[in-house]
Amino acid sequence: MGKKCIGVDIGGTTVKLGLFETDGTLLFKWEIPTRKEENGRYILEDVADSIRHVLIEKQIRMSDVVGAGMGVPGPVMPDGYVEVCVNLGWRAMNPARELSELLDGMQVVGGNDANVAALGEMWQGGGMGFTDIVMVTLGTGVGGGIIIDEKIVAGKHGLGGEIGHIHIRDDETEHCNCGGVGCVEQIGSATGIAREARRRLAASDKPSAMRQYGDAITAKDVLDEAKNGDEIACEVVDVVCRYLGQTLAMLAMTVDPQMFVIGGGVSKAGTFLTDQINRYYQYYTPISKNKGIVGLAKLGNDAGIYGAARMVLS
Amino acid sequence: MGKKCIGVDIGGTTVKLGLFETDGTLLFKWEIPTRKEENGRYILEDVADSIRHVLIEKQIRMSDVVGAGMGVPGPVMPDGYVEVCVNLGWRAMNPARELSELLDGMQVVGGNDANVAALGEMWQGGGMGFTDIVMVTLGTGVGGGIIIDEKIVAGKHGLGGEIGHIHIRDDETEHCNCGGVGCVEQIGSATGIAREARRRLAASDKPSAMRQYGDAITAKDVLDEAKNGDEIACEVVDVVCRYLGQTLAMLAMTVDPQMFVIGGGVSKAGTFLTDQINRYYQYYTPISKNKGIVGLAKLGNDAGIYGAARMVLS
Repeated sequence: MGKKCIGVDIGGTTVKLGLFETDGTLLFKWEIPTRKEENGRYILEDVADSIRHVLIEKQIRMSDVVGAGMGVPGPVMPDGYVEVCVNLGWRAMNPARELSELLDGMQVVGGNDANVAALGEMWQGGGMGFTDIVMVTLGTGVGGGIIIDEKIVAGKHGLGGEIGHIHIRDDETEHCNCGGVGCVEQIGSATGIAREARRRLAASDKPSAMRQYGDAITAKDVLDEAKNGDEIACEVVDVVCRYLGQTLAMLAMTVDPQMFVIGGGVSKAGTFLTDQINRYYQYYTPISKNKGIVGLAKLGNDAGIYGAARMVLS
Repeated sequence: MGKKCIGVDIGGTTVKLGLFETDGTLLFKWEIPTRKEENGRYILEDVADSIRHVLIEKQIRMSDVVGAGMGVPGPVMPDGYVEVCVNLGWRAMNPARELSELLDGMQVVGGNDANVAALGEMWQGGGMGFTDIVMVTLGTGVGGGIIIDEKIVAGKHGLGGEIGHIHIRDDETEHCNCGGVGCVEQIGSATGIAREARRRLAASDKPSAMRQYGDAITAKDVLDEAKNGDEIACEVVDVVCRYLGQTLAMLAMTVDPQMFVIGGGVSKAGTFLTDQINRYYQYYTPISKNKGIVGLAKLGNDAGIYGAARMVLS
């Protein structure tokens, strides 16, 4: 029986876990609720108990497990230290070290969840076969993960791959959650796309199929109506893709990956979205034809457990 | 006698060479002219002859040399291949491999000159003591080099660290040499600073000490007059530093280095310049106080030979 590795993806509502062969085969995946009471102090115990339980059930010895990787929704220092993790209530702790202690000294490595998901997509997802990718996750916010030579670029202060908070839009006036104004996240996220649609609808008298949704309009509604050819929806998607294409261009001229992997809920719009992003990405990189390609993520919500498991193999 | 290493920095006019101890001590540096005739076919032979000559003169055996690194003014692929190097006339060759053959199989490693200079500044310059730095070279153009874990991020297509060609300014109308519009280089380079000054002088009736220079005004003139408090010169420096600060912010949220090292001719303005860049860098990174610092390069034109020599040690 080959060695196994474990991926743990800690979210604000559930913890996703996966048991893998070291070749990337997912053997078993499961979830437990994230107990956030008392500043999340039970989360790691729950994770450890659950892992022990599954290993016994699957008749796998601890000694057959290379280690466990863990994605955490916040900045993680190179040594695993977490200053603050708002969604979980954690403060000033080293969750990887603590989980290792709870698992009899098993190798445990921690990383930021977006970075970890990027590693997962490189390993077994949209970026499979490549060593250098940038993942851009278009969800409620915009997350990013940079992988160079099969390793996460976590940065020296946990800011590596925080591309959602790059300033990109000078004419934005509202503030981003980060305190900035004009972040990529403010235009490229699901939230940002819906807001841009509301703004353009309010500023225009033109008829639009988007008006039926009122203020509850979602990014999916916008993308669907753009696919149907709705003029204002197309304008929204165009401006969103322009800023995202510009962001990819900037990353191409910074870390120059083999591939940009676009993921997150917004990416369900598929090539309708990525083709338009790609067009602007090409526009903003006239310097060379020879550069990273743009494609879609493949692992969905499992990217985190894949990437977490992969972390212990390098 | 300890092992030595050699740094070669190939420029359009001269080739700079340096002989180093492996601890970074510069033993001897010299220059030879860059013979560009016949598409630069003699350059590497000249370099090899010159290295052999100096080693004999200094009584150093080839076997005591770990290797030679070489910085080249153009994109260099991960395997050393150079598709095109306009300034030298080179096309479709592997200069590192060729120089190695000319030096009896000595280890030779090639890299882009701006990336190599960044490695030099990390090793013995402004970024000494750090492992992760980004160097921004403000010269005739704007060059960049990204070092993570003491290694150059060259990128998979030779675009790594090409930060001069990141699109940053939407209201630019002129084209950059790269074919783009609104590149960092168009505002942050010596050329860009002088042009911004000419534009603002032409658009204004205000008196300005800069008017004495006419169209021949240089970046140094602008920075000197800004230091003297000239209003329009201060406006120019302000806008330049805003875009450069925004560029650093973007890099902080991408590769998150320990330090930004500002070099090149424009950086001779010293902390007058970097303080203003830093102010905007802080403004564009409200997400965290804990991030890379901004400082000045120290090696000047020698950064290339230092970095080239350092390349063969990792």
